[in-house]
Amino acid sequence: LSKKATHERTRHYNSQLVLRTIYESGQISRAQIARVTRLTRPTVSDVVSDWMTQGLVEEVGLAPSGGGRRPILLSVVDNARYLIGLDLGREDFRGALINLRGVIQHRVNLPLMDGDGDAALALVYNLVDALMQSADSPLLGIGIGTPGLVDAENGIVYEAVNLNWHQIPLRHLLQERYNLPVYMANDCQAAAFGEYTFGSGDSSKDLVVIQVGWGVGAGIVHDGMLLHGNPYGAGEIGHISVVEPGELCQCGKSGCLETISNTRAILRQVRAAASALSVPLPVPPERLTFDMVQALFDGGDVAVRQVVQDVGRALGAAAAYLVGVLGGCRILIAGRVTGFGACLLDAIRTEVAQRTLPALAENTEIGFVSLGADIALRGTSALLLHHELGLF
Amino acid sequence: LSKKATHERTRHYNSQLVLRTIYESGQISRAQIARVTRLTRPTVSDVVSDWMTQGLVEEVGLAPSGGGRRPILLSVVDNARYLIGLDLGREDFRGALINLRGVIQHRVNLPLMDGDGDAALALVYNLVDALMQSADSPLLGIGIGTPGLVDAENGIVYEAVNLNWHQIPLRHLLQERYNLPVYMANDCQAAAFGEYTFGSGDSSKDLVVIQVGWGVGAGIVHDGMLLHGNPYGAGEIGHISVVEPGELCQCGKSGCLETISNTRAILRQVRAAASALSVPLPVPPERLTFDMVQALFDGGDVAVRQVVQDVGRALGAAAAYLVGVLGGCRILIAGRVTGFGACLLDAIRTEVAQRTLPALAENTEIGFVSLGADIALRGTSALLLHHELGLF
Repeated sequence: LSKKATHERTRHYNSQLVLRTIYESGQISRAQIARVTRLTRPTVSDVVSDWMTQGLVEEVGLAPSGGGRRPILLSVVDNARYLIGLDLGREDFRGALINLRGVIQHRVNLPLMDGDGDAALALVYNLVDALMQSADSPLLGIGIGTPGLVDAENGIVYEAVNLNWHQIPLRHLLQERYNLPVYMANDCQAAAFGEYTFGSGDSSKDLVVIQVGWGVGAGIVHDGMLLHGNPYGAGEIGHISVVEPGELCQCGKSGCLETISNTRAILRQVRAAASALSVPLPVPPERLTFDMVQALFDGGDVAVRQVVQDVGRALGAAAAYLVGVLGGCRILIAGRVTGFGACLLDAIRTEVAQRTLPALAENTEIGFVSLGADIALRGTSALLLHHELGLF
Repeated sequence: LSKKATHERTRHYNSQLVLRTIYESGQISRAQIARVTRLTRPTVSDVVSDWMTQGLVEEVGLAPSGGGRRPILLSVVDNARYLIGLDLGREDFRGALINLRGVIQHRVNLPLMDGDGDAALALVYNLVDALMQSADSPLLGIGIGTPGLVDAENGIVYEAVNLNWHQIPLRHLLQERYNLPVYMANDCQAAAFGEYTFGSGDSSKDLVVIQVGWGVGAGIVHDGMLLHGNPYGAGEIGHISVVEPGELCQCGKSGCLETISNTRAILRQVRAAASALSVPLPVPPERLTFDMVQALFDGGDVAVRQVVQDVGRALGAAAAYLVGVLGGCRILIAGRVTGFGACLLDAIRTEVAQRTLPALAENTEIGFVSLGADIALRGTSALLLHHELGLF
């Protein structure tokens, strides 16, 4: 590198280091920043002044006296920038304006209504347009979690069957249209990065978030970084075989995890058990909803409980394969199945214990994510904050 | 960081950068190093002079004239240091003196003869003692590939059932005894890092090496780094369930990959097929060797071919799980089963195609490693060269 390039890189690095330090401490003085970062006082003052000019940092008061003059405290201005987050992994497309703390400030949901291909793409534009109109702070960029195989590096949705998208250069399309940086990931990967960044729990271990919804997929955070695959497909556990012979899957194979453990499969299994339910279904079987299944479960229905245990065993088999590849890790379940609580977790844990070496099972944590339905949305904001501002 | 610490870190970084540049170019002049690294000429000269004093770099002649004075060419002195590599993942313990190019200069093999626990540890000392006596260059350190669950960061063999080792602080023991840096990995992980470093093929993808021997295990290289697990157990696929119900495994579960695909299981299956073989076994079934199985296979025996296909299908199931977790990747098989050639690979490929999404199967390469039986030994040297000298 030339002296100038090195200098610019150092400046960029120091600038992000100072912002991260202020961000993580809540409130901190320039002198404390210098102590923590080991940068010189003049460097810290320069960098802070830059961030203040850009409006991302402000002076918020005076620290208690330590004997001499009371130092000025600095803080990040949480709403100085907004991020646009999109979660396309649901039956309605969800978008949000999110602040620098990953807190959602404004939402727009647009129903997909069986639209796909160009119609789905138009809906993405509508969502971003609507969010931009509501933004009263400058925008930092757009983060997207989309179902399917996502080539994050090149910004391409390689294949999203539900949306009938094939090799859509989504990043390029949005960057051209909105002139903002765009980051993408598979929706389960976004969820995992959201949980890693904003969730609670031990972050030193590899984190796997298994999201159970319309489909089933996992996101894996290793060493603070998302595994994307080469160039896509990491965590695509929905089509791992867990039963032989099993039901035919949408993908053309049979016995896939999704044939047992996605929300449609759960509804199908409860319908099939209709005659064994403790109370008659309140609607014709084809109109059964997940809320009704949850209500039956909450009422202690034995047949529904049995279905939940089967779902847990299938998830447990997949979890055991994850442990076989990654070693002991934290495996957290996300999605509506979290309503099945200990019944589901116990079935998963039992299966993992039966299918992995004891030393690895002992070293594996199985639980639920700490974030709710916004997990993927918040994850997209974490991707943006990480790549654009060097946070986390 | 203090100014002094930053300065030292920069110096260390530059020093390794220059050495890596010389190492990778074969022969290069100081001026070329400065161009490639963008370091100043005086910095390059200083660093080169340091390496020459330490004997790792030498002047080897003059480059062709580019008009003016012919520049002096520098080269790494391949035998300036030796590394001790140990592969404890076989029925005999293997050790080698390896030079800075990862080329084996001297070998010592010591038979384990059913020894375990302290006896196995004593054998490790004997191996290192013997290698040290043969070394006519200074030693850079010791690299070890050991079976079982290896906590590489803390240098502890957490559990190696075959050796009856439980929580052995192997790094500490060897560092105390020999006063040399020690790096450890599971033997399959060492093999994967060896193939990644010294093997041929596309190194941009995640690399998985599945080693089939006494046990079956995988090593995974992601983004140029070995996955170790948290803190161990990455790639422990030998105990993934691939058949239900299957044979009882040593680990207490049944249907594990090892019950079909390790060398003992292969011998067992050929013995069980003895009556169907094209020629009678030359020895009583209990004395059947892997060489005999190979000879039968090479002679076109249909029953042995059938066993090989079963072995391939089981490996293919495990490979499909790897693809489900990592996405498309390079999966290379190592060990004596490589002698079964296309018959084995075809069975693996067919199973992977049947068990993964087409877009991921297309993106996955299945083949054999390019290195031979020394793969793990050379891998331990790669670990040392990487961590001690910043190479690769």
